[in-house]
Amino acid sequence: MDRVKPILDQNAFVPDAALPKPLRSLVSHRQRTLGPASMLFYQQPLEIVRGEGVWLFDANGQRYLDAYNNVPILGHCHPAVVSAVSAQLATLNTHTRYLDRQIHQYSDELLDTLDMHNARIAFTCSGSEANDVALRLAQMASGRQGVIVSRAAYHGNTSLVSQVSPSAFRQGDLPDWVVAIDLPLSPMNDADATAYVSKQVAEAIAELEARAYGCAALLVDTIFSSDGICTDPLGLLTPSVAAVKAAGGLFIADEVQPGFGRTGDAFWGFQRQGLRPDIVTMGKPMGNGYPVAAVVASEDLFNAMTSQFGYFNTFGGSSAAIAAAQAVLNTLRREGLQEQAKCNGTLLKHGLTELSGEYPCIGPLRGAGLYFGVDIVTPDANHAADPESATYLVNALKNEGVLIGAAGTHGNTLKIRPPLCFSPSHVERLIETLGRVLKQIPA
Amino acid sequence: MDRVKPILDQNAFVPDAALPKPLRSLVSHRQRTLGPASMLFYQQPLEIVRGEGVWLFDANGQRYLDAYNNVPILGHCHPAVVSAVSAQLATLNTHTRYLDRQIHQYSDELLDTLDMHNARIAFTCSGSEANDVALRLAQMASGRQGVIVSRAAYHGNTSLVSQVSPSAFRQGDLPDWVVAIDLPLSPMNDADATAYVSKQVAEAIAELEARAYGCAALLVDTIFSSDGICTDPLGLLTPSVAAVKAAGGLFIADEVQPGFGRTGDAFWGFQRQGLRPDIVTMGKPMGNGYPVAAVVASEDLFNAMTSQFGYFNTFGGSSAAIAAAQAVLNTLRREGLQEQAKCNGTLLKHGLTELSGEYPCIGPLRGAGLYFGVDIVTPDANHAADPESATYLVNALKNEGVLIGAAGTHGNTLKIRPPLCFSPSHVERLIETLGRVLKQIPA
Repeated sequence: MDRVKPILDQNAFVPDAALPKPLRSLVSHRQRTLGPASMLFYQQPLEIVRGEGVWLFDANGQRYLDAYNNVPILGHCHPAVVSAVSAQLATLNTHTRYLDRQIHQYSDELLDTLDMHNARIAFTCSGSEANDVALRLAQMASGRQGVIVSRAAYHGNTSLVSQVSPSAFRQGDLPDWVVAIDLPLSPMNDADATAYVSKQVAEAIAELEARAYGCAALLVDTIFSSDGICTDPLGLLTPSVAAVKAAGGLFIADEVQPGFGRTGDAFWGFQRQGLRPDIVTMGKPMGNGYPVAAVVASEDLFNAMTSQFGYFNTFGGSSAAIAAAQAVLNTLRREGLQEQAKCNGTLLKHGLTELSGEYPCIGPLRGAGLYFGVDIVTPDANHAADPESATYLVNALKNEGVLIGAAGTHGNTLKIRPPLCFSPSHVERLIETLGRVLKQIPA
Repeated sequence: MDRVKPILDQNAFVPDAALPKPLRSLVSHRQRTLGPASMLFYQQPLEIVRGEGVWLFDANGQRYLDAYNNVPILGHCHPAVVSAVSAQLATLNTHTRYLDRQIHQYSDELLDTLDMHNARIAFTCSGSEANDVALRLAQMASGRQGVIVSRAAYHGNTSLVSQVSPSAFRQGDLPDWVVAIDLPLSPMNDADATAYVSKQVAEAIAELEARAYGCAALLVDTIFSSDGICTDPLGLLTPSVAAVKAAGGLFIADEVQPGFGRTGDAFWGFQRQGLRPDIVTMGKPMGNGYPVAAVVASEDLFNAMTSQFGYFNTFGGSSAAIAAAQAVLNTLRREGLQEQAKCNGTLLKHGLTELSGEYPCIGPLRGAGLYFGVDIVTPDANHAADPESATYLVNALKNEGVLIGAAGTHGNTLKIRPPLCFSPSHVERLIETLGRVLKQIPA
C-alpha cells in the first residue's frame, strides 16, 4: 500500500494561534458553529466583506489584491454574471426534468470547446460530484477498479473521491486500489521528465493488475495544482495515457483547475498537453461562484453507469446555474481572457524569474498562463524545501495586501492563481510586493 | 444480500415515446447534449420558461399549478430570496475560508431550531454531499460499516450514498453492508406498525453483526418520501432508534424532504416523531433553489472524520448560499409557512379523503402538512397496486394544468408536495382537477 505523508497546508489558520481580541471573538463564534469541518486561511484570518474584480475588501476597508482565487475567474462580482443570474432567479430556477432551451444552447457551446466523440454532459453542483461520477463511469465501463493519481492530488471531497485525493489524507494509507505517482517537479530535461512519469505509470498499471484490480483510470488534474503545479514539458503524459488505454483503462482529465482558459495556451489543460481524454470533469470557475460543475463522457460510458444506477442531480444544471455558466463563457470570449491570461502570464513569469535571480530562496518555477507555482527553498546549496519561509511569505504578503496560497507535497510552493482579469499593473504590484517581503524572511 | 427490485418512476418520460414534432426536436436536442444521465418528466415533457409562487408557465403561456416541487418551498422566484441573493452576488460571493459574520448568524439560528448537543455544521452544495459526509461520520465514529435504510429509500447520488439508496438501483443487489427494512404502508394499528418496524430493525442489526460489519447507522428520511410517504404513527421509530443506539450505531435523520416546516407539525421531521438524531442532513428547500445543504453533528463526530481526512467544500456555505438560506429562514417565519402547511394540509387531507370515498381506486392515504402520498389500487377487492393508473393520473393532471409526481416501491403512489405557499384555493383546484381526471381512468 502507498504510504501517504500528510501534507501541510501552509496557507491554513492554526486554531490555537494567539489572536487580537476582535478576531478572537469571531474565530470563537466560528468554532462554536462550523467547527472542525471548516478551515480558515492565514495566521490572522481575514474578515472579507466585499469583492470587485481582482480586489477583496476586509471589514476595516483594507483592500487586497486577489492573486489566489480561481473560482471568480472573471473577477469578483462580475456584472455580466450578477445580472444574468439575478434575472434568471427572478424568472425561473428549476431542475432539469423539464425541457429548457438554455441548457441545450450552453451544452452545444461547451461540447464544441471539448471536441470529444459522441460526448454527453451530466451537470453537477461541484467538481467533487463530477469526479465522483467520472470514477464510477470509468470503473463500471472498464469493469476494473484501480486508479492512478499523482502524489499530492486533490480531486474533491466525497467518500469515493477523497480516496483518490492523497492530499486530503491526514493519516493512514491510500486504499489498495489506488497508486500514486511522482511528478518531475525538479528541473529535468524533457525526455527524462516524460520517461520519469511513463515508467511510474507502467509500474502502477502492473501493480494494479498484480493486485487484481486492473487499471480503470488515470485521473489527473492536467496542471497538477495541489502537487505544486506541473505544466511542462508539453507531452509529459502522452505515453502514459497511451499505456493506460492499452491496459483497458480510461483517461480522466480533471479540468477543475486548468480549464476555461487559465493556462493561456488552450481552453482546456488537456488540449495544451495534446491529450484526448475519455472523461472530462470541470467545476470551480464554471459559474464564477455560482455552484455549477459537469462531467463529460461518451454516451456509452454514461450508459454503463445509468444501466446500473439512475442518476439525477437536483441543483445540477438548474436554470440559474446555466445562466451563470453561459455568462462566464460569453464573457471569457468577449473579454478575450484566455489571451489576457497568456500575455499577463508571460509578464508574471518574467517578474518571477527576475526575482529568482535576486533571491536564492526561490527555487524552481513552474506554470502557464495565470497559474504559477514557486518553490521556496533554503538559500544554501541544499536547496531543501522550506515550508516555514513559504508560510512566512504567504502571511507577509497578506499583511501587505496581496493574497496568494501554498501547495505541494512539502507545502513549500507558493501558489499564484488570480482571476483572469489580472492586468499588467496587478502583475507589477504582485511582483513588487513579493520582492519587498522576500527581503524580510527571517533567517 | 438484499435483492433490490428496480423501482419504476411513473412520473418519468420514456425516451422512445412518440411525440409531436416541436417536442420531438427539443427532446432530440436534449438527447444529443445531456444524454443518459438526465431524466425528463411526463409522457410529453414540459418546456417550462417561468415560475411565480405556486405557478409554472410553459413556452406556450399555459400555466400549471405546482403541487410537486419542494425545492421552491416559499414558491417559485420568491422576491425575498431573489433580492437577497442578487444583492449578495453583487457584493461578495466567496468560500468559507475567510471569516464571515453572516454564516455565524445563520448557523446560530439554524442550530437553535435543531436543539442538538454541542452541534456543528458543515455546509455542502447538495443533500447528496451532506449524506455522503453523514455516512462517513457514522462509520468513522462508530468504527462500524453497516447501515440500515428503508426499502425504497433515496438519499442521493454520490457513489457512497447511491449504495444506501435502493430506489436508485436499476439492477443488482444492495451491498452486503446495507440492509433494507419495509414500512407499514398498509393500514395497521399503531402498536403493530411500530412492532413491525422494530422487529425488522432488530433483525437487521443482528444480520449486520453476523456479517461482521456491525451497525454504524440507521439512516432514514423521516417522512419516507420515496417509499411512498409514511408519517404515522407518531413514535414509529422510537424503539428502533433506541435499539440502534444500544448496538453502538448512530441515528441519521435525513431532513432533505420533511425539513423546514413541511409537515406542519414541527420544523423538522425528527421532531414531529419525537426523536433525537445524532446526525441531521438537510438540502433541497434550504435555499429555495440556490444550491445549499448541510450536515449537523457533534464536534466529536466531526473530529472523528477530520482527523483522517481534511474536509473543504468550495461552494458549501458560500456568501450567496448563506444569503439564500437566511432569506428562506426569515420568510418561513415571517409568512408563518409551517402553520400554513398545517392548515392547508388539513384541507388537502379532507379533500383527498372525500375523493377516496368516491373512487375505490384510491387506496391508503398517508401524509402530514403539505406532503401526501395517495396509493392508487385496482378498484376490485384485491386492491392491488396499480402503477398504470397512477401514471395515467400524473399525466392527465399535467394536461389539466396540475403538476404532481409518483413514488413508492410499486410506483403507484401519487406524490403531492407543493410549495408551502399553497393556499385553500390551490387545494380546491387540485382536488377538483384530481376528481375530474379520476373519472377518466381507462378501465
